[in-house]
Amino acid sequence: MEARAEAAARPLQAAAIGVCAETGFWDALRRLKLDVLGTDDSPIPITGYYTPRQYEKIASLFRICPESILPPSVNSFGDRNNCPVPGTLLNTNNMRGFQNLDRALLLKSEAKKILYDITSGKVEENPALLLRFLVISFADLKNWKVYYNVAFPSLIFDSKITLLSLKLASAVLSQEEAISLSKTFTEWRKSSETTVVPFFLIDLSPDSSATIRQLKDWKACQGNGQKLLFGFYDHGNRRFPGWALRNYIAFVSLRWKIEKVQFFCYREKRGRPDVQQSLIGEASFPVPHGWDEPDYVPEAIGWEGETTGKESKETKPKEIDLSSINPASQDEEKQLMHLKLMGWRHFPVNLDKLSRVRCLLLGAGPLGCEVARLLMTWGVRKLTVVDDGCVSMSDLVKQSLYTDKDCGVPRVTAIVPHLKERCSAVEVEGIQMEIPMLGHNISASKLSSVHDDCKHLQTLVDSNDVVFLLNETWESMWLPTLLCADKNKIAITAALGYDSYLVMRHGAGPGMRGSADVVAAADKLSAEDVLGRQRLGCYFCNDVVAPVDSVSNRTLDQQCTVTRPGLASIASGRAADLFTRLLHHPDGIHAPGEIAGTSCEGPLGLLPHQIRGSLSQYNLLTLLGYSSSNCTACSNAVLSEYRRRGMDFVMQVINEPTYLEDLTGLTDLMKSAVYSQVEWVDEADDDEIDI
Amino acid sequence: MEARAEAAARPLQAAAIGVCAETGFWDALRRLKLDVLGTDDSPIPITGYYTPRQYEKIASLFRICPESILPPSVNSFGDRNNCPVPGTLLNTNNMRGFQNLDRALLLKSEAKKILYDITSGKVEENPALLLRFLVISFADLKNWKVYYNVAFPSLIFDSKITLLSLKLASAVLSQEEAISLSKTFTEWRKSSETTVVPFFLIDLSPDSSATIRQLKDWKACQGNGQKLLFGFYDHGNRRFPGWALRNYIAFVSLRWKIEKVQFFCYREKRGRPDVQQSLIGEASFPVPHGWDEPDYVPEAIGWEGETTGKESKETKPKEIDLSSINPASQDEEKQLMHLKLMGWRHFPVNLDKLSRVRCLLLGAGPLGCEVARLLMTWGVRKLTVVDDGCVSMSDLVKQSLYTDKDCGVPRVTAIVPHLKERCSAVEVEGIQMEIPMLGHNISASKLSSVHDDCKHLQTLVDSNDVVFLLNETWESMWLPTLLCADKNKIAITAALGYDSYLVMRHGAGPGMRGSADVVAAADKLSAEDVLGRQRLGCYFCNDVVAPVDSVSNRTLDQQCTVTRPGLASIASGRAADLFTRLLHHPDGIHAPGEIAGTSCEGPLGLLPHQIRGSLSQYNLLTLLGYSSSNCTACSNAVLSEYRRRGMDFVMQVINEPTYLEDLTGLTDLMKSAVYSQVEWVDEADDDEIDI
Repeated sequence: MEARAEAAARPLQAAAIGVCAETGFWDALRRLKLDVLGTDDSPIPITGYYTPRQYEKIASLFRICPESILPPSVNSFGDRNNCPVPGTLLNTNNMRGFQNLDRALLLKSEAKKILYDITSGKVEENPALLLRFLVISFADLKNWKVYYNVAFPSLIFDSKITLLSLKLASAVLSQEEAISLSKTFTEWRKSSETTVVPFFLIDLSPDSSATIRQLKDWKACQGNGQKLLFGFYDHGNRRFPGWALRNYIAFVSLRWKIEKVQFFCYREKRGRPDVQQSLIGEASFPVPHGWDEPDYVPEAIGWEGETTGKESKETKPKEIDLSSINPASQDEEKQLMHLKLMGWRHFPVNLDKLSRVRCLLLGAGPLGCEVARLLMTWGVRKLTVVDDGCVSMSDLVKQSLYTDKDCGVPRVTAIVPHLKERCSAVEVEGIQMEIPMLGHNISASKLSSVHDDCKHLQTLVDSNDVVFLLNETWESMWLPTLLCADKNKIAITAALGYDSYLVMRHGAGPGMRGSADVVAAADKLSAEDVLGRQRLGCYFCNDVVAPVDSVSNRTLDQQCTVTRPGLASIASGRAADLFTRLLHHPDGIHAPGEIAGTSCEGPLGLLPHQIRGSLSQYNLLTLLGYSSSNCTACSNAVLSEYRRRGMDFVMQVINEPTYLEDLTGLTDLMKSAVYSQVEWVDEADDDEIDI
Repeated sequence: MEARAEAAARPLQAAAIGVCAETGFWDALRRLKLDVLGTDDSPIPITGYYTPRQYEKIASLFRICPESILPPSVNSFGDRNNCPVPGTLLNTNNMRGFQNLDRALLLKSEAKKILYDITSGKVEENPALLLRFLVISFADLKNWKVYYNVAFPSLIFDSKITLLSLKLASAVLSQEEAISLSKTFTEWRKSSETTVVPFFLIDLSPDSSATIRQLKDWKACQGNGQKLLFGFYDHGNRRFPGWALRNYIAFVSLRWKIEKVQFFCYREKRGRPDVQQSLIGEASFPVPHGWDEPDYVPEAIGWEGETTGKESKETKPKEIDLSSINPASQDEEKQLMHLKLMGWRHFPVNLDKLSRVRCLLLGAGPLGCEVARLLMTWGVRKLTVVDDGCVSMSDLVKQSLYTDKDCGVPRVTAIVPHLKERCSAVEVEGIQMEIPMLGHNISASKLSSVHDDCKHLQTLVDSNDVVFLLNETWESMWLPTLLCADKNKIAITAALGYDSYLVMRHGAGPGMRGSADVVAAADKLSAEDVLGRQRLGCYFCNDVVAPVDSVSNRTLDQQCTVTRPGLASIASGRAADLFTRLLHHPDGIHAPGEIAGTSCEGPLGLLPHQIRGSLSQYNLLTLLGYSSSNCTACSNAVLSEYRRRGMDFVMQVINEPTYLEDLTGLTDLMKSAVYSQVEWVDEADDDEIDI
């Protein structure tokens, strides 16, 4: 079987190292690239795992596994079948970069490191350095593929290694030696300190007892009349010792000037030393010339696929398909990739926060559809949508998600599958409910159901983190605005006119959670949030009247919310974007309002309070408005009463048109001289946003 | 059968007029409201059609039909069974407006018109004025329903009409009289002049011969010893004369001071006078007091559903469902309603032009999806989409139309049903094709297919009116830009950076369609379009180098076009909007570029050349740039060569990297001193838009 092992002197031939680069490794690289490295394509130190041949008929493989990518400083993985070996990974940013890599030059550069490790004595401290390897790759993460090649650089000098003899160890050793060696190997391999050391010295004393020593003990082994074999974990096959032997012989020659080497190719069988199949050989290697000159760069060979002696040719890249791993989470990872990629050059998106934040959308019309979709694009995964209408034929070209099959179906029923078929990870609930409205005459028979709706909305606001007010009427925004102010929930309003839009975030609620007794003294506090900052206004803070029925007298174009096509797309884009900026701001809802042109910018850019834009004139304004102590929705007067009386208060507001204006002092304000001026400002606003 | 007709003196009872308001009338109102009236809810003069009873057992109906809504000035419709009667339609803008109408007051106001027509003598000229009617309605066009009521105002005075006798005409007339009357009625009804006159005089001479005279001939009928009957087309039933008799008696009494009236209720049977079933009766009506005072407003009755003598109560509105008409075109009408409604207050959208314009979309990704959808929202119905990719999982949250079922399907295949399920009227074709790109090395084997693609694109640009350049790479925009400049096709480009976007329209091509011989002299002409106006720039006019391969060296984030979520929505909204402004501009592609702040605004607002916006800083700029004589895509040098050599030229450009720069003089420009400055400007642009 091992006939060739006994042939005469000839050039040393060595079996190439087989590599198993596990899918898990590439998946770990994928995550590292996406989450950490970004465009950085500088070399990454990695660790490979080497093992002696363990089965008679199967060559052992060099493993590159998920642990390989751990930084060497924290990578403690290694065991008897996984001797850690330092390597370098060069992952390019694109296919062209991969193709253009100068493989020969890279190999030389790694070989030079090996030569340095040999001459500097580092190999004696860490023999695995002789197995230093190189991986080049292009991780085509867009298509979930990796193209790669692996090299084990081996030094080539002007002098060649000659194999003088190669025999089965059993044919060379005496039985006593074999038994002793077997025993001492068992111990060497048992000790966690030595089991991972692939190169070592075998000291065979004249009394046939064997000792295994570390390379660094070489000097101590000299001159005791013993026989010294240079042993190494051999992955080789039946005919040839493994690739590891080449650099080993070079090391012995260059470092210790030994020109004739007896080596021991250590192999195992079922987890035990297999002296029978281990090889003992002798090789000669005249110390080459010139290698110790300062700028000497050795020739090298070692790309997987290359064989000794042939010219280095460009090897075909190996290809690995990552799409088979984590199929369950892969859709979601693909859908989040653009957000991770944002972090490469621009801004690290807090995916964790986005995936956890619970968003309540009031309205599933033109704005609701787009905002829901864009929130998913932003990585939001928990949505609750409230609407009371059904999809109609005329909605289809205006409300982006619905199709003809949805006609007649409640919007909140129709929207759920449309969102899930774009993002299976989204959790979305649709709730068909009318948002209770101020100023609409409520018949006695309906009072109870309106009361229930108010309670339901209260529960919904409580159980969500953010509320998007995308409803179409002024008066339906009052209750959610109040509820958000009460619980300091983020509220984002988007409202469309014909040609213009408003997108704003409401300020935090008043800092004082006082009882009615202190309302009178709370005017100042009412203007500040719990952090003592001046509160930003809510949607109602500019109004000088309480909401009234704005629907019943609408003409058809107002009923249909006639807006220029595209306006809803623009406003929705801005609303989802404003929300994300706010979510990433360290102060969240308490973040001060910024105005374009100022320099106080958050990580995603300016964080304004209000954005108003008009299509026809290409106007885009960022505005800042503070809360009003007369506000019908977020003032202390209103919130104190709400906290004291709860739903009784809400129902009184709904039933008594003037109650809210009396309570907030708007009635007095309207009588005062201030009013005319305030009204004028408000009218100008109304021209722009005619909701 | 007609026993009651012979009873003794009693208050006159009259049968109400039955109304048939045809669906076609309401549909005509719907169109008038949408297309012409808008929010205008002032009274509309309409025409109803009255007819005598024509079948023994079926009361004739007062018709309100599609012709009813024609303006009286052009309405010539009327025949023997459709006597035109003037009426008024009051169509409110909303349900509350309808409910709040003061029906009693409206009735009085119409009654007053009748009184005026009586006293002024107008009735003698046009007897149908006695049947003046009123329709109130709310056309709930959003829900395709109409709510309405009809009234035939009848005057009420302090004195009452007493019916002295009522008999079948056959029982009153001699046989000779009946025969003569039948004959004269046949003639009266035959003449187109008289057949539509529902009130008339019957002159029975002592020799039993009957003559029918117009009311205006009343004076001429006096004093010849004849018997005079006041005849009218009677719609009444078996027991009672019709409602028309009430105002008729009032007229005779007030106008001619006749307190006792003999009347003839003319009825027909199978299109012939039916003297048998016609009635002759006598009524007395003492001339009432006070009606001739200047401000007298008569009491009135006459709402459909009311009956004589009862107090006027609010009648339940009738409801008509328009959704059954034109089912074929109704979906489309519903989907265009918002555009028609834009015309109510803002801007009359040219739906005709939009539905005919043929749009070619290059790219079916984030921009392609949104632009296609928004074009449909704008009423565009002819789309061709070109793309070469397939839908991937990661597209789903970024490209608004696709769903999980589309993964792996070519985008142009997937997009077709998604567009049609939103708008069945859209004609959309998807073409899977790669846009030929400059600067990419094309292998010899691919040259022929690239040549075919170039030809195909040429055909597509030729057969469309507008080209949207929504492709993701710079170099793929060159050929379509050239083709559009050559044929003066509108070209709209939208391009996304990470945080910023560019939306622009290309200028018209150079005015000179000269041969290569005159290229040298064409520099000046090259700067002007066929109207002699300075040409706006194309997408390449600012570039100082020819397009090169911008793809192969891209990192993953660049391959995936990482943009902030929402940016595609915003840019798409602006692109579709810019196109629509241009389409409505009288100069179309030749329209000069406007800049925000200037006053030269088109009907939809400003018509800029370029719009650049960035999300993070809320920047929005309108820019103006003129064409460059060195442009690699739209300069005369390039177009002349293209016109002379066609596809040979295109293929040379694709194959020879420097050819285009040499041809356009960019090579020289780059060597010149001007370059450094130009480059600086260009770099600033690149920061903003990194495509």
